[in-house]
Amino acid sequence: MTYCIALNLRDGMVFLSDTRTNAGMDNFSRAKKLHHWQVPDERCIVIQSAGNLGVTQAVVSELNEAIDRGDTNAETMLNTPTLFSAAQLVGRTMQQVQQTYGPGLSARNEDSGATLVMGGRRKEGRPRLFQIYAAGNFIEAHDDAPFFQIGEHKYGKPILDRVITPETSLQDGVICALLSMDSTLRSNLSVGMPLDLMVIRKDTYCVGETRRIEPMDEAFMEMSMAWSTALRDAFTQIRL
Amino acid sequence: MTYCIALNLRDGMVFLSDTRTNAGMDNFSRAKKLHHWQVPDERCIVIQSAGNLGVTQAVVSELNEAIDRGDTNAETMLNTPTLFSAAQLVGRTMQQVQQTYGPGLSARNEDSGATLVMGGRRKEGRPRLFQIYAAGNFIEAHDDAPFFQIGEHKYGKPILDRVITPETSLQDGVICALLSMDSTLRSNLSVGMPLDLMVIRKDTYCVGETRRIEPMDEAFMEMSMAWSTALRDAFTQIRL
Repeated sequence: MTYCIALNLRDGMVFLSDTRTNAGMDNFSRAKKLHHWQVPDERCIVIQSAGNLGVTQAVVSELNEAIDRGDTNAETMLNTPTLFSAAQLVGRTMQQVQQTYGPGLSARNEDSGATLVMGGRRKEGRPRLFQIYAAGNFIEAHDDAPFFQIGEHKYGKPILDRVITPETSLQDGVICALLSMDSTLRSNLSVGMPLDLMVIRKDTYCVGETRRIEPMDEAFMEMSMAWSTALRDAFTQIRL
Repeated sequence: MTYCIALNLRDGMVFLSDTRTNAGMDNFSRAKKLHHWQVPDERCIVIQSAGNLGVTQAVVSELNEAIDRGDTNAETMLNTPTLFSAAQLVGRTMQQVQQTYGPGLSARNEDSGATLVMGGRRKEGRPRLFQIYAAGNFIEAHDDAPFFQIGEHKYGKPILDRVITPETSLQDGVICALLSMDSTLRSNLSVGMPLDLMVIRKDTYCVGETRRIEPMDEAFMEMSMAWSTALRDAFTQIRL
């Protein structure tokens, strides 16, 4: 499985993904589930993926192949007129990939399910965050719930539900995403380190921070321990 | 769906269940998912249920019918020689119910899945906690992980993972179970109030406390709000 979180805050956008992949309990590996496209000073678009790794990698590869072909008439992640049309492009690419591999997977009783989160911004537009399904359809995050989670989303949802609003600061958003991931890492073996973190700051059109957090990352371990202690201290305050 | 938690602590046993049932989003109702059997000063056994409500109610009804028939040669929840044999009895009853209804449900593409937690103690034995599956097989909780959760278990697992050990006090166990339930209630519509709480105190063979917690229960609402505040305060202490 997988766990990815994306936040769309007034202060900027936060994307956090794990890297564990598994085909059964005896076949664990790592794969990057966070990808991005940039046109300096014009746009920055991030995609996170969960589900069938062959399917999601095919979608990302097709998007990159279209750019590499250099056909200036073709719509690509670097030239779509809006973020919405980028989501449509990703959705169409997902449909094509599903048409190519879906029937074969289905015939082998294998799941072709896949979900993407796509977020980013263009100079001309507001920051937008979409969740794109295996059928190519998608939904957009709004202020009522300014985040998406894909993959093993349940363990880490309570902290997001309690903390995240559009006004949450970027720093708090990063911490909350990391704590949500920390709870998931502790409770589910199919989500694993290292983590990929990416931030797009307010009023910028480029990746503001990108970081791979390795299993022995000191800052993350300290934060994780501090959260455990703070939670246990919080617990001792509760009386019935 | 459902969410039930059972803890087996040195200090006693805690059982907490929600009461929401649903057959689709448009058919919500309430059903008790916590049942118990007692022989004064000899035994107390509790069952919690999740999954197909027809199946789990049939299992509990069959167990009760066997008692009501008054056949003194038959094994029932009131006379099994051990807790282990009570778990076997429940497992066999589950198998019979699955044989009766499983094929018909399967033919209609309906899920006959069901999981029970059974815990309690007899005067002659130690407190024991079992999780019984739809196939009638079961596992037992031990000190390494002295709790079981059935139904929507993911939202509320992190707090249990962090707090519960066999040495956790009964009072803390009750609070932790309620907080685990509170997180689940906030994040998943298929789990709902009222809640049923039951406690078996150390060295007793009877239900020590049983309580239905209604949606407007003041103590629960206060605890829930205090936990929200404590969590947010804990969050503000975390720096990266």
